[in-house]
Amino acid sequence: MKVEVIPSIHEAVADQFAGKTAIVIDVLRATSTMVAALAAGCKGIVPVETIEQAKKAQAPGDLLGGERFCQKIPGFDLGNSPLEYRRDIVGDKIVVMTTTNGTRAIQTSLQAETILAGSLLNGAACAAKALESERDIVILCSGTNDVFSLEDGLCAGLLAAELSRLASVPPDFNDVGLAMMYTFERIRDNLTEAIFGCSNGKRLSRLGFSQDIVYCSQVNRLAVVPEFCMGVMKQH
Amino acid sequence: MKVEVIPSIHEAVADQFAGKTAIVIDVLRATSTMVAALAAGCKGIVPVETIEQAKKAQAPGDLLGGERFCQKIPGFDLGNSPLEYRRDIVGDKIVVMTTTNGTRAIQTSLQAETILAGSLLNGAACAAKALESERDIVILCSGTNDVFSLEDGLCAGLLAAELSRLASVPPDFNDVGLAMMYTFERIRDNLTEAIFGCSNGKRLSRLGFSQDIVYCSQVNRLAVVPEFCMGVMKQH
Repeated sequence: MKVEVIPSIHEAVADQFAGKTAIVIDVLRATSTMVAALAAGCKGIVPVETIEQAKKAQAPGDLLGGERFCQKIPGFDLGNSPLEYRRDIVGDKIVVMTTTNGTRAIQTSLQAETILAGSLLNGAACAAKALESERDIVILCSGTNDVFSLEDGLCAGLLAAELSRLASVPPDFNDVGLAMMYTFERIRDNLTEAIFGCSNGKRLSRLGFSQDIVYCSQVNRLAVVPEFCMGVMKQH
Repeated sequence: MKVEVIPSIHEAVADQFAGKTAIVIDVLRATSTMVAALAAGCKGIVPVETIEQAKKAQAPGDLLGGERFCQKIPGFDLGNSPLEYRRDIVGDKIVVMTTTNGTRAIQTSLQAETILAGSLLNGAACAAKALESERDIVILCSGTNDVFSLEDGLCAGLLAAELSRLASVPPDFNDVGLAMMYTFERIRDNLTEAIFGCSNGKRLSRLGFSQDIVYCSQVNRLAVVPEFCMGVMKQH
């Protein structure tokens, strides 16, 4: 089985995904938030690109979530902090969500047979789910505005390490995949600190979202694996 | 001081280099060969893009070197193996050299104030030389056909680690730089093995160049730092 890690959306080509299982990663914070929301009983996340699309897609009872420049969108029910997506708020609800990079990553990987949302929170569960398909795997790091983000790379490295551990035959990684696995192995005992020291970590902590970083840097804490199906990310 | 690592030529933009010190890396094998050649007494390397340009640039007494698809070019004096560039062959000579990715990396970084050639062989010396300028540093991994190569990333990581060690104020790395430093730190005691396991390592060993991989994966063995000046890579 081949496992290809793509370091940012800028590097991705749509037909790289054809016939494969895609795992999209946006650790800070879109995919972490999706995982947290579904773990809290949210029925599904509808990822859309624009604020306009979010408002159009909202059915009665649905919540609106998402961010622009890391901040909650005026008039929306929820921002992009996983800590907001509590059971008493999102339980049994659909959330229509617009985020800058996470949604673009899903759009980019639409040719895949299966699209899963990966984060540090659900790394092991996500790797196990991806292996079930027995297809080649493409792991897409969203990055930030077309530039590689360390926290997404660390998550790709966690997934690579988990795939290595779980697969019956050792997977064949591309060079980015090898590098990310080594990066994760080097820093796994200091993940939170490393993420505070990278570009998005610095920006989010400046903006007052340090608790999100602490939350999102927890490894294998949740077993939920959001899967994109008919426009909705949900647990299958 | 800012230190930006660019993972492949595909990711590089010419004006990112303006006013900065560039370090170009092509561990397998162009920059390793340049370092080995100058250490063996070669007077200078003239990097050019095409075979045609190499023949035109050759003055009486100059040698022609380089590769296409990893192999020596018919009619040329030397291939792209550092082990060929021995004192009895290249001593006091100029070598006009055409390689696929290394030369493109130099072309891409032409707006830099200074262009140095980095490899695992001369990592510490190269980092020290780059710091002398007190300018921001851009480290360009050549990669292979626009795709990231692990061995170049490991070299970028070595340079990042050496810059951290040598700089009086801790450098400010971009996220790729941090990831490559962690990758290098994870694998520094098994560098040769890791390079044999990556894409170019596998290809070169299949083609019979295993000795080149062993040679090029030696860390800080040589103190030579090729610098690009008036079309020639030489020791200053």
